Amino acid sequence: MTYDTNNIFAKILRGEIPCHKIYEDAHVLAFMDVMPQVDGHALVIPKAPSRNLLDADPAVFAPLFAAVQKVANAAKQAFDAEGVLIKQFNEAAAGQTVYHLHVHVLPRKDGQELKPHSGKMADHALLAKQAEAYRAALKV
Amino acid sequence: MTYDTNNIFAKILRGEIPCHKIYEDAHVLAFMDVMPQVDGHALVIPKAPSRNLLDADPAVFAPLFAAVQKVANAAKQAFDAEGVLIKQFNEAAAGQTVYHLHVHVLPRKDGQELKPHSGKMADHALLAKQAEAYRAALKV
Repeated sequence: MTYDTNNIFAKILRGEIPCHKIYEDAHVLAFMDVMPQVDGHALVIPKAPSRNLLDADPAVFAPLFAAVQKVANAAKQAFDAEGVLIKQFNEAAAGQTVYHLHVHVLPRKDGQELKPHSGKMADHALLAKQAEAYRAALKV
Repeated sequence: MTYDTNNIFAKILRGEIPCHKIYEDAHVLAFMDVMPQVDGHALVIPKAPSRNLLDADPAVFAPLFAAVQKVANAAKQAFDAEGVLIKQFNEAAAGQTVYHLHVHVLPRKDGQELKPHSGKMADHALLAKQAEAYRAALKV
């Protein structure tokens, strides 16, 4: 299993395609999932290349999950969430579609259904507003 | 939100109730989920107390996810998995039922359905055999 440097998240990291950015530091980038399963569905990725968690340099885990924690707590505030679901897919059999390690952060409310991961893009104006809500929550 | 020192994983960490152990080091413990959604369903927990990821000391993330990576790679080998699904639940609205931070590791195969998280205990002889398969894979 190899790392494809032309996967979509590698292109986002290189600034070749845009994203709705939530958070960035020296090691990680967080941005809105453009095919969200729920309002506030965010992704957190390490800047270092790896296909997924299985082949990642373990050095990425500390900054990656520190950022996941920040984004998850911000999700509770920005989206009035009662809980936060974290998912991370390794290989197609587990649901992986983009082959750069990424962690899903999903704000959850009691009784609210998750939408299936369709191929349908969300409205970009809405995603921009949601990213702004995250950034505001992260500044607290 | 507070940490209940009598949650079932705290009792496992204190040795007050048994588990089918997969892996242990100074910072983490991994063991079989007794209500598995799939064969090989494992849990990885930090020894340090926290309710979930939201209130965890970020210092736990490096050893916790290094162990998740070890167990996930072992899952591929021990259970002939084509992928590995990682899930982590924060608060009841996200599916959390035990309030000590834990990470689910689920071996996945194409087309294989996940069982719902029922209240039904798996056969302990089978879980013991599966834990042994994990430990054997981890020694490689």
